Amino acid sequence: MIRMGSTVIFDEPPVIESWASVAGNHEKKGPLGSYFDIAEEDTTFGHKTWEQSESAMQNMAFKTALEKTSFQADSIDYIFAGDLDNQCIASSFGLMSFNIPMVGLFGACSTMAEGIALSSLLLAGGAANHCAAVTSSHFCSAERQFRYPLEYGGQRPPTAQWTVTGAGATILSKSGQAVASGNPKIRAATIGRITQLGIKDINNMGGAMAPAAADTLTRFFQDTGKKPDDFDLIVTGDLGELGLSLTIQLLQAGGYDCSDRMNDCGCMVFDNKDKHYGSGGSGCGCSAIVLNSYILGQMLAGNLKNVLFIGTGALMSPTSTYQGEIIPAIAHLVHIGI
Amino acid sequence: MIRMGSTVIFDEPPVIESWASVAGNHEKKGPLGSYFDIAEEDTTFGHKTWEQSESAMQNMAFKTALEKTSFQADSIDYIFAGDLDNQCIASSFGLMSFNIPMVGLFGACSTMAEGIALSSLLLAGGAANHCAAVTSSHFCSAERQFRYPLEYGGQRPPTAQWTVTGAGATILSKSGQAVASGNPKIRAATIGRITQLGIKDINNMGGAMAPAAADTLTRFFQDTGKKPDDFDLIVTGDLGELGLSLTIQLLQAGGYDCSDRMNDCGCMVFDNKDKHYGSGGSGCGCSAIVLNSYILGQMLAGNLKNVLFIGTGALMSPTSTYQGEIIPAIAHLVHIGI
Repeated sequence: MIRMGSTVIFDEPPVIESWASVAGNHEKKGPLGSYFDIAEEDTTFGHKTWEQSESAMQNMAFKTALEKTSFQADSIDYIFAGDLDNQCIASSFGLMSFNIPMVGLFGACSTMAEGIALSSLLLAGGAANHCAAVTSSHFCSAERQFRYPLEYGGQRPPTAQWTVTGAGATILSKSGQAVASGNPKIRAATIGRITQLGIKDINNMGGAMAPAAADTLTRFFQDTGKKPDDFDLIVTGDLGELGLSLTIQLLQAGGYDCSDRMNDCGCMVFDNKDKHYGSGGSGCGCSAIVLNSYILGQMLAGNLKNVLFIGTGALMSPTSTYQGEIIPAIAHLVHIGI
Repeated sequence: MIRMGSTVIFDEPPVIESWASVAGNHEKKGPLGSYFDIAEEDTTFGHKTWEQSESAMQNMAFKTALEKTSFQADSIDYIFAGDLDNQCIASSFGLMSFNIPMVGLFGACSTMAEGIALSSLLLAGGAANHCAAVTSSHFCSAERQFRYPLEYGGQRPPTAQWTVTGAGATILSKSGQAVASGNPKIRAATIGRITQLGIKDINNMGGAMAPAAADTLTRFFQDTGKKPDDFDLIVTGDLGELGLSLTIQLLQAGGYDCSDRMNDCGCMVFDNKDKHYGSGGSGCGCSAIVLNSYILGQMLAGNLKNVLFIGTGALMSPTSTYQGEIIPAIAHLVHIGI
C-alpha cells in the first residue's frame, strides 16, 4: 500500500470476489435490465412496508453475491453498509440475519464507492481477509422521506432525479486470499472531501455534487500522475445528465478532458430519452446496481480494463433544506482494473 | 496486526495523539463537568438552529483536539464522523470547513467507538498516518427528531434516557508516526454484530442494547483469552442504569463477572441520583465526551491502565418504530491501554 497525496495505491490489490444486483420494475425496463441478477415487477418484494422491501433487496443482494463465492457468511470479516433511510434502517434490518460484524456507513449515494474503498483499505492493510460492501435505495421509501407522499403525485423540474429501486453487493478478498483471482481488482482509492458551491436546490442535486466529483477526480489525477486516457471508462454515480455535464466542464477547466470516456450511472440505468426520469437515476442503489451488473460484467469479459468508479453523495437532509442550508456533497473514487 | 476470531490485536498499537470534548449546560453541572475542554451554559453555541449548534460543537471539538497536536489540518488523512441527525448533517456541516477527506459513519451511539476502531484498523494497516474520529449529539435536535417537539414537554418513563449535548474528537496516529508516544494506545478492536432480543420499547433502549454489548464483550474475551480482571475499567456507552445492569447479568450468565469494574458513560455523565435524567445519558455525544475527557485523562495520569470502551448503538428510526419493528442494536469495542 503506497500513499500518494490523498490517494492510496494498492500494490497487492484486493480482488472483487463476486457481485450481485437486485432491481425494481423501472430498472428492469431500462437499458441494463437484462444484466441484473434479480429484477422484479413487484417492488414490494412481498413485504408490507417500503422500508421492509428495501431491506429485503439488501438481504437478497448480499445473499446472491455470497452464493457466487465458495464462502459461508462467517468467512466475511466485515460488512460495510449504509443507505439513505433515516438512521440507515434498510441496512440494519436487511443484513442483521447474517450475524456478520457490521460497519454502518453514511455517504448518501456515494455509499457503494465508500464501502468498496474502506473494504480495500482494510483488506490491503491486513485487517481482514474478506469484506462486503452493500447498499440500496427504494423509490417509494425515498419519495416519502425526502419529497412528498406518493399519493400526492407532485410534479418535478427536469433537473430532478429519479430514485432507483435497487440494491448491490460487492464481496472483496485480500490479495492472496481470493478464490476468483482473475476477477477485477481495486488498484487505488481516493476518499472524498466535502465540497459545496452554494447550491441549495434539492431538485438539482447533480449540480450540487459536480464540484465534489471534479475535486476527487482532480486529486486522483494529481496524486497518481495518471491521465483520463489511461482509463476506458470514468463513471460517476449518480450525477444525472446535468451533473455529468457540469463535472466534465469543471474537469476541462482544470486541464483534464474526460469528455470522450465519461458516463454516469444515473444516465445509464434508465432510457435517457424518457424524460419521465428527469435528469437520470439517483439513490444509493443506482451506482450500486450499475456497478454490480453491467460494469463489473464488462470488465470480467475483457471489454473494459481500467475503470474509475466515483460515487457521489449529496449530504443534505430534509431538515437542513427546510432551514435554508446549502447542499454539501462528497465523492469517493476507486480505480478498478483487470 | 493479528486477527484472533473477530478481534484484531494491534502489535504496533495506534496512539491516541490528542482528544477534546465540548459539552452543554446539563453536562457541565454533572460530576464530570470540570473535565470538559469547553462547557457552555448557552447550548445554542451562538447559532440559530439546534442542528447548527450541534455542528458547531463537532467543529469546536475537532479544532480543539487538533490544536493540542503539532499538526495542521492537512496532516489528518481521514476524519471518521457520524451522528444521529437524519443523514448525519451535524457531521457534514460541522466538519466540511476543514477540507479533510471524510468517511461518513452511521452507528448511532456507538459512533465514537466505531470511528476509533476504524481509524485504528486503517492506521495499523498502513493506509494512513493520522486519523480523527468525531461525533456529537444535542438534546434539542434529538428530541424533536426522535421524540416530541420541545414545547410539548412530554413525560417519560424512568427507563428512558436523556440525550447528552456534547461532541468529542479523538486524533490517532500510526505507531511510529505519533508525537505523543506516551499517550494511551489502541491495543485491540472488535467490530460488533447486530443483535436483538425482540425489544420494541424506545423508552428502553438500554434494554435493547444490552445483548449487543454482552455479545461483543463475550466475543472479545473468547477471541483473546483475556478476563475481566485484566482491565481496570470496562465502560459501555450508553446503556444507562437499566441497560448496564442487564449487560452485567448477561455477561455473568455467560461466565464473565464484570460487576466490580463495569460502568457506563450514560451513568457517569449525570448525577445518578437525579431522576430528571431517567436511566442516564445517551446520544453519540455521551460516550464521546466521557471518553474524551475523564477516561483518557485518567489513563494519561496513570490512574487507569487498561480500559475496554464499548460503544453501543440502537439502530431504530422513528419510521421503524411507527411500523412496529424491533430495535436492532450494535456494540463496537476498543481496548485502550497505556
